[in-house]
Amino acid sequence: MEGWSSTHVSSRPPHRQNTRPTMRDVAERAGVALVTVSRVVNGVGTVREETAERVMAAINAIGYQRNELARSLRPGQNSMTIGLLLGDLTNPFYASLAKAAVEVANRAGYAVLLSTADEDPEVERRAVGELIGRRVAGLIIVPDQGDHAFLNEINGHDHVPIVFVDRPATGAEADVVLVDNEDGGRKATQHLIDQGHRRIAILGAPSYYSTGRRLRGYRKALRRSGITPDSNLVVTLRRGTTEEASAATHTLLTSADPPTAVFSTTGFLTEGVLRACRQLQTSVAIVGFDDFKLADMLPTPVTVVTSDTEELGRHAARLLLDRIDGDDAPSRRTVLPVQLIARGTGEIGTQ
Amino acid sequence: MEGWSSTHVSSRPPHRQNTRPTMRDVAERAGVALVTVSRVVNGVGTVREETAERVMAAINAIGYQRNELARSLRPGQNSMTIGLLLGDLTNPFYASLAKAAVEVANRAGYAVLLSTADEDPEVERRAVGELIGRRVAGLIIVPDQGDHAFLNEINGHDHVPIVFVDRPATGAEADVVLVDNEDGGRKATQHLIDQGHRRIAILGAPSYYSTGRRLRGYRKALRRSGITPDSNLVVTLRRGTTEEASAATHTLLTSADPPTAVFSTTGFLTEGVLRACRQLQTSVAIVGFDDFKLADMLPTPVTVVTSDTEELGRHAARLLLDRIDGDDAPSRRTVLPVQLIARGTGEIGTQ
Repeated sequence: MEGWSSTHVSSRPPHRQNTRPTMRDVAERAGVALVTVSRVVNGVGTVREETAERVMAAINAIGYQRNELARSLRPGQNSMTIGLLLGDLTNPFYASLAKAAVEVANRAGYAVLLSTADEDPEVERRAVGELIGRRVAGLIIVPDQGDHAFLNEINGHDHVPIVFVDRPATGAEADVVLVDNEDGGRKATQHLIDQGHRRIAILGAPSYYSTGRRLRGYRKALRRSGITPDSNLVVTLRRGTTEEASAATHTLLTSADPPTAVFSTTGFLTEGVLRACRQLQTSVAIVGFDDFKLADMLPTPVTVVTSDTEELGRHAARLLLDRIDGDDAPSRRTVLPVQLIARGTGEIGTQ
Repeated sequence: MEGWSSTHVSSRPPHRQNTRPTMRDVAERAGVALVTVSRVVNGVGTVREETAERVMAAINAIGYQRNELARSLRPGQNSMTIGLLLGDLTNPFYASLAKAAVEVANRAGYAVLLSTADEDPEVERRAVGELIGRRVAGLIIVPDQGDHAFLNEINGHDHVPIVFVDRPATGAEADVVLVDNEDGGRKATQHLIDQGHRRIAILGAPSYYSTGRRLRGYRKALRRSGITPDSNLVVTLRRGTTEEASAATHTLLTSADPPTAVFSTTGFLTEGVLRACRQLQTSVAIVGFDDFKLADMLPTPVTVVTSDTEELGRHAARLLLDRIDGDDAPSRRTVLPVQLIARGTGEIGTQ
């Protein structure tokens, strides 16, 4: 999972490292929409003759290169459509991501084919095949944890640019846009340590990439403060539902040596911890990963670490459009920063 | 807005009123996927010869009619893609709707082009043109309040089936799937009356269809209980944001003759009422329209009227697929039921 050819950490959009003129440069020079250039280059749709001439003149003037032209000329290559494959839209994380990606794509003249896979490798595989079969110009994928070598087969002939978002994919090399999970885990745990907590539990489904990184940040923060991680306080959920998190919290809080604080690594898990506390009519210090609506309106406002989810979607879409335009620099890994919002549940006084 | 040719109220999917064989019947008979029939009928893509022969045999056997065939044969007519045009995905209402519609469409072999318009008539118009230009086989639209006669022009030549969801559109006739807004308004208000309230305010942006209906239900419930509606308690917000609702609640609750209860007609507005109450360190009886996550976890759990939003999306998608398959019965209006979930904020004891 670590074998990425190029790694850099940035919260800004990537520079366009490709200096060869792109279709978008042609559009700019000719003063026409990208879709018009695509029509001329691909010979599909109708364009007025004088417009087509202006586009051809721009192509010649800026030296839009032959190999780019050849690539664009492959039938259906630029369908001006991208595919977006992610998890359950009723998870606000995916909804924000989709919203932002659709906005960026539409503004650039691209339509978005939306598909959802819900962590099921078979469904994901079928959906990717379906999208590539529909000649999308590029794909944004939130990959599940399975092996993604199948992408190389499906995509072998078509070479559709792919950007992975939220997690990298094993077995397939492509751009990836992440949030700084490890730093988030560290910040959440450090906040609880700073409030005097020593017995801090972590709830997660560590088979997923992001939870593994959050766990690593948790362990580092504990060790730096001279606290030996207690494996009884590291709880691995099987699926990561609210109900599982609630049951696990119940077990933790009624054990012989309960934790005084919990770091819950997703929004669904945080809700489970809160529900268990209400059921037990007790409370525990909590820091959640990912902010959620009304977190500040609960009886004790909930402290969270969070990142800019819409920026995650925007950034992935911009990166993909650059790739579609011919940017062929080595794969990039972009990591967006996280921040802690202290609201109450992390404080010692709230127990 | 009432000029619909056919009106029936039902929470079940519509019967297929068209008894002529459809492309889906051909697929079933031939034992192949719908997309395969589409390929044979439209002459696009590749299908193995023996499969094509099986499809043609099924067409002849069940008498798939010539006019349907002719319609299907129009270039690009069945792209096996539908367009979905709705509001901000970070509104959980639209996210649930999209999720359900995408699931139904994908299962039937259709891909979904997603576009968002956010109540801006110009953006909606452009997005519709863009989707029809991409030869979608059908469109699901949450229309804004403006005149939709433009749809007849854009769509005049292509006759792409359209289903409106959540609101009907003025100036354009098509199927529409709604929730029972008036009954929801009545149930919310009646609940507050049953708790002993007489001064009940309503917050809404009544220029929208659904809010108008909710207001009508509110007025009817008051009149039936012999309460004269007080126009000072009917608050019209300009955009319907949480911030506006919060400010309006502040004004209402600090007035000389404040209401003892508020009916907030959307989830965003309910949040605004709750925020104003917290700011003023006071409380008021509340019933909200549309349920929301964590409504039951707030200091006083929030009473709501709600409908099955995913069913709204599923139903719209099924109806559209039937239309694409050739169902040409008169336009239908389907109204899904609403129910009240009593949780606390509507009760007299919570004030």
